[in-house]
Parts: sequence; structure tokens; C-alpha cells
Amino acid sequence: MSLPHVVIVGAGFGGLDAARALEGAPVRVTVVDRHNYHLFQPLLYQVATAALSPGDIASPIRWVLRKQRNAQVLLAEVRTIDPASRTVWVARGGERPADVEALSYDYLILAAGATDSYFGHDEWATRALGIKSLDQALDVRRQVLLAFEAAERAQDAAEQRRLLTFVIVGGGPTGVELAGALSEIARHSLRRDFRNARPESARIVLLEGNSELLPAFPDSLRRYARRALERLGIEVQTDSFVTDVDALGVTVRSRRQPNGAPVEKIDAQTVLWAAGVVASPLARSLGAPLDRAGRVIVEPTLAVPGQPRIFVVGDLCACSESAREPGRYLPGVAQVAKQEGRRAARNVLRALAGRDLRPLHYRDYGSLATIGRGSAVASIGGAKLTGMVAWLIWIFVHIFWLIGFRNRVAVISEWAWAYVTLQRRVRLITGEKLWPGSA
Amino acid sequence: MSLPHVVIVGAGFGGLDAARALEGAPVRVTVVDRHNYHLFQPLLYQVATAALSPGDIASPIRWVLRKQRNAQVLLAEVRTIDPASRTVWVARGGERPADVEALSYDYLILAAGATDSYFGHDEWATRALGIKSLDQALDVRRQVLLAFEAAERAQDAAEQRRLLTFVIVGGGPTGVELAGALSEIARHSLRRDFRNARPESARIVLLEGNSELLPAFPDSLRRYARRALERLGIEVQTDSFVTDVDALGVTVRSRRQPNGAPVEKIDAQTVLWAAGVVASPLARSLGAPLDRAGRVIVEPTLAVPGQPRIFVVGDLCACSESAREPGRYLPGVAQVAKQEGRRAARNVLRALAGRDLRPLHYRDYGSLATIGRGSAVASIGGAKLTGMVAWLIWIFVHIFWLIGFRNRVAVISEWAWAYVTLQRRVRLITGEKLWPGSA
Repeated sequence: MSLPHVVIVGAGFGGLDAARALEGAPVRVTVVDRHNYHLFQPLLYQVATAALSPGDIASPIRWVLRKQRNAQVLLAEVRTIDPASRTVWVARGGERPADVEALSYDYLILAAGATDSYFGHDEWATRALGIKSLDQALDVRRQVLLAFEAAERAQDAAEQRRLLTFVIVGGGPTGVELAGALSEIARHSLRRDFRNARPESARIVLLEGNSELLPAFPDSLRRYARRALERLGIEVQTDSFVTDVDALGVTVRSRRQPNGAPVEKIDAQTVLWAAGVVASPLARSLGAPLDRAGRVIVEPTLAVPGQPRIFVVGDLCACSESAREPGRYLPGVAQVAKQEGRRAARNVLRALAGRDLRPLHYRDYGSLATIGRGSAVASIGGAKLTGMVAWLIWIFVHIFWLIGFRNRVAVISEWAWAYVTLQRRVRLITGEKLWPGSA
Repeated sequence: MSLPHVVIVGAGFGGLDAARALEGAPVRVTVVDRHNYHLFQPLLYQVATAALSPGDIASPIRWVLRKQRNAQVLLAEVRTIDPASRTVWVARGGERPADVEALSYDYLILAAGATDSYFGHDEWATRALGIKSLDQALDVRRQVLLAFEAAERAQDAAEQRRLLTFVIVGGGPTGVELAGALSEIARHSLRRDFRNARPESARIVLLEGNSELLPAFPDSLRRYARRALERLGIEVQTDSFVTDVDALGVTVRSRRQPNGAPVEKIDAQTVLWAAGVVASPLARSLGAPLDRAGRVIVEPTLAVPGQPRIFVVGDLCACSESAREPGRYLPGVAQVAKQEGRRAARNVLRALAGRDLRPLHYRDYGSLATIGRGSAVASIGGAKLTGMVAWLIWIFVHIFWLIGFRNRVAVISEWAWAYVTLQRRVRLITGEKLWPGSA
């Protein structure tokens, strides 16, 4: 008799921790992902800003699970889910369009994550690059470095200024970290590289629709972060909404001004998007209720209401913070996804054993965001920390959670070197035909 | 009065050493390259085989030359050269086709290199991937890793065998090093990663048209290399020519068999091309005599005959080994390019000072090729070394010539880790839409 089959869709924090929590259990586990690696997303902005190599923050899924004999890995994209027949339809990757194949499950843990949301303006996506995948991060790296290259060659002062203007949309941790990193590139790493352009004159604008940056943090840390960014020369504009993105830059409307007030046009070559996410469209194929961001509203056990064989975890799942506050959902961060993944896996085993499912008891370990070299904010329990102390905690936590001893050593040594030299080693323009007219 | 303008096309070994040799001289130097980085090509096969990250072997040209105040860098592609008007026509890189701009020179050092030669069968290029650029190396990495992924899913034994067959065309140092690295991936790095496929059963075939591998090496080292490769399970076929490459594999004809003898068909998913190079087409725009591989036949001073303001160095140049042996040209390797670059730069300065040009006195420091972990061949002066000694020399020389202290540290630590664990950290499938049918 074959063992029950648990299919896990997505090998991010939630999916991978679910798979590991099933190690040694009497089940067959199949992890399906459209990439062959697990990505440590909190450091993705460092790939986009040339500080780390892709290999430093990505671990082959097969390698992570190589010793877990009950787990197999499938490089494939899930196209749709049919709960009635307990089937996941997958397409294998490759050079030609592949046939779609059926994968049957006894239990399904859905951890397919989220992508950037352009709030109904998907046409902005080609201009306002998001940073959700490794390939996107390399696109951003290329675009940022090419902007400096173009500025070096620009004859016109206004055009040079536009080329050296970088707009970051979204003042959460990713936006704050991106802004700080861009400031460091412009003011330090590239300082001596150019002869005509002056990278240190770059204009970096951070836009946030709310009245404060870092909404998940306490007030005092938000104020600290804003001051720290401004000291780095970054223009922070809160209460500011992007109303258009075009070839020349972005159009911004301030919430403080009455409707009809003049909008500001920021001429910028580079626009980076860190403003919001929308859940994977796979959520829709479950036929379950979704929240505004397209996430599946789950039971406290992470099961889908009325579908006890399907669990949803991570950015794809809307899980209430507590029974007392329905409608207030846990945020899409790594520590939530990891705890949800483990809870879902244990509940699968409980269901197989005929036992009651248990609700998620989420433990909040705190929030961290780095601003620059020796500067960060940390809210841990009741403690609010800033500056070098917060920065060292940030480093420690990120190294600790990174997968693989060798990756940890590599990232620590990159950071140590960058701290001393203010350089960024991976300033490579790769991955696209730069020369459209050539042979 | 403005200083004389020296334009250097290409920032490989030859171009970069030419630029550095002009440091402090009373000239303006412009280095034009279509990439923003100098690539340490001897280790490119290690990027293709997931051992090193692109950032480990590539250094931003601007960073290398940041302290050389008389040098500027231009990210652009040279389209043609007009010696009559002393003009290089360049296209700037970017997202849209750019206008072509003129760049005037007083002296030109052409170091534009070479690309793969398919011996009149350019249609093979999409199937038999070469490894000359960083993007190509990442393509090879993706294709090799995808072959193992496809083998894991294959139902049919013959198809699985085809997916796990790797053919390398060309038995020079690159071909030998690739074969050794692929053997290590299959037999060690991936050994525990798969559940259905057996990577260690992979078939690796190394084809060479000559009767021996490594034509530049002494006989005893060639025999050693062949035995060492065979001990790694690699099938070495010398005197073997590829007559066709198609979707299923390669067709091979042996020179030992009479014409009309049956050809062998090797069913293989992955075909890698390390068989020969052809000079950049820029050579043709000089109107100077070219050799069979399209290289410019230069004077012993590296000047183009009849065009005293143009010097050619590196893989683009056919420079006689000695005046006694015209027609026998120096090989396209790093140490030749570097010495030529420095000689050309010094001759530019001598010409500007009204002094006689000097011929290149090439010093041959020897030849090295690595086969696998702890195994290499080295021919240095009269000494012929093999095994661990040769391997340590190979490591020392490559680290020594790599640019940048930080890159050296990174590569040493990757190698040390790989030596102990037999793992390859950078096993990432990136850079292409894997899912043609999806949103």
C-alpha cells in the first residue's frame, strides 16, 4: 500500500518549512516549484543593488532536501488546482511549451506566494520594476547600472539629472532598504568610476502613500528611519500616491492637497516598485473566499473552509491574527510563512492520524529593517532599537535564517568587505541583448 | 592643446593591460567595451558548471581603472572602423537601438577578441552552446541543470539516457576542463539530489579532431590527461569530427575510418562547443591581410602593415612567434594577449615620442590545464608536471592573475569548500522564461 501523498506547491519559506516538518513521517512528499532554488527573499534587494550574487541567497531545493528520503522535488509550474478530483495540474519547464500533467494528492499545502500589485495599472510593470524574483533583481541591477552609464554619456544637464534620478515607490522595509542601498552605491561605490557624471549627485526619492514609512513599526522607529534616510540624502515623500508612470518618470499626487491640486512630475529614468503585492492567481482555483489582496481566507488551522484536505500558508494565505480580531490578517513576512508552513504540515499529520487539527499560535519575534551601513531599526518584544545595535541584530538574524553554511560564510564575508571598502563587488550588467541592432 | 587620444577597443586581457600600461602617460585613453566588466575567461567554464558566480570572475572595468585619471570607459559596441578618417563608429548600449556615433583617435589599439567558430555551420550554434561570454556560460549552466531535471522525470530508459549524455566538442584546455567538471557534477555534486534519475550514470563524451587532446602540450602530458579523464569515466574520442548537430544529438565521423565508413550517432541532450574560434568581424574593416581564422596579420611591433596608427593585440591578432618562423602565430591565450597589450601601448608612446617601435619579445611561461579535483597537467619551461603538484600550480596561477583582492578571496574560498564537500554552490537555473505558456 502506498503512503499518503502530500503535495506542496512553492518552496519559499512556507513551503520549504512544511516539507521539512514532514521529514520522517509516513507520507510521500512532492515539492513543486517553478524555480530549482529556494530564494532568501529578504536579501533580494542586495542582489538588485550589486552587493550579493544570486548564488549567495539561493539554495537548490534538491540540495536542501537531499537527505529527506520521503521528499521529491518537481521543477514545474502549477497551472490550476481541482479540489474535487484532488488534482494539481502542472506544466514541466523547458524550452518548448510542455504538456500539462496531473498530479494527485491526498493533502495539498499551497504556498505559491504573491507577486507585485500595480493597483490596476499592470501597464506600469515594464517601467516600474518590482523585486520579487531573482531574474527581476538582476533586471533592476542592470537598469540601475545602465542609468549611471547613460548619465556618463549625456550631453544635456536636464537629461543627465533625469538619468540620475531614482524613484522608489513604497515605504515598507523593501523600499527603505532599497533607498539606502542606492544612496550608498551613488555616494560611495561609484564615486570614482565616472569622469563626466557625478554619481554622488544622484536624486533618490522614496514615495509612500501612508503618512509614515514602515507601517509595521512603532512611531519612534518610523521617525528615526525617516531622519536616517534624509541624512543619507534621500527625499522621503509620505502621503504621496503615484498616479502615472511613463517613459520619462512618475506623476505623484499628495494626499495632503485637496483634489484637483497640481500634481508633481518627477523626471526619472529608474522607477522601482515596492508598493504592494497580490496573491498568486492559484488562490482563485480553490473556489474559497478571498480577501482584497486575493489571498485565501483560511481557518485558524490554515485549512481552507470546507476543504479539509487543502492548507494554505505564506503570502497566499489570509490568516487572522487571533480569534478575537477576524479580518486583521498576519503580514506577508518570512517568520509568518515559516510558522504557518510547520503548522500546516503538522495538521496534515494530525488529520492522517484522525486527530483534531490545531490552530496556529503565531509568535511574533519582532520587525527589522536596515537603512544603511551601521544603521537599522528593530522592534523586538517591547524593545525599540536603532543604529549600530539594531544593524548588528539585523545581520545576525539574516545570517541565522539563511540556508546553508557556505552561503552564510559567503554573505558574511561580502558584508565585512563592503563595510570596510564601501564597494559593491557584483556590478555586472548581464542577461539581455544590450545591442539590439548588432549581429 | 589637448592630449593625443588613444582608443582601446575591448577590455579583455590585451585591452586592459594596454590601458594600464598607459597610466600616467601624456595621452587620453578611452576603453570601449560592449560589457561593463572585464571577464577572467580562463575560469568561465567554472561559471558554466555552477562552481563560481559571475561576480567572482568579472570586474567592472570602471572599477579596475578608477584610479587611472587619464582613462575613461565607454560602454558601447564598435560597429566599424574607418582608418582613413581615424574614426571608430560606436553604438551605445541600451534598450532601444541607438544612433551610431563617431569616436576619433590618434592611435587605436584593437583588442576585440574572437567568438566561436562552427566551421561554416552556424546553424549548430543554438544546439551546441559555446562558452565565450558570461551570458553564454549561464546558458550552459541552465541547459546542463535542466538536462538532469528532465532525466528525473523521464519515463523512457532510452530517453533518460539521451538526457544524461553530454557531448563536448573540442579537446583543448576548455574542453578538457569542461569534461572534468561535468563528471564531478554528475558523480558527486548531484549524487543525492534525485530520486528517479541516476546522475552518476551520466555519459560524458569528449570529441577531438586531432589524434591527441591538448595539442599545445608535450606528448607525455597529453597521455596523462587522457588517462586521467578516462579514469573519471569520460569517453575520449580523438580523430573524430562532428558532421552534424541536430535536436537529438551529434553525428560523428572518425578520421581513422575510410571515407564512406559508417558514422556514429551519439544521442545527447547537451552538446557543448569548445572546438575553435574565429576573430571578431571588426578585423575586416581594417583592410589588412587576415589569416585563415580571420585574424589580422600584424608586424612584429603589433602595428597593422601600412597603418602605423593601428595596433592589434590578443585573439584578434596573428603575430608570428619569431621572425624565423613567419606564418606560425602565437596562440590565443591570456599570457600572449597581456604581453601584446603592454607592447602595443609602449609602442604607441614610442611613436608619439618619435622613436622606433620595438618588436614583441614573447616570453612563454608555460601551459596549464586542470582535469579535476587534485589533477592537472603543467608544462613550464622544460618541466612536465602532473597530478596534485600541477593542480596547485594551476590554482596559484589563476588566483594570481585574477583581478581584485576580494575576487581572489572569494574564489579561493569557493574552491576550498568545493574541495572538501565536492559540492557546487551555484546550481541555479536562471535567466530565461522557463514557462512559455504561462502568464
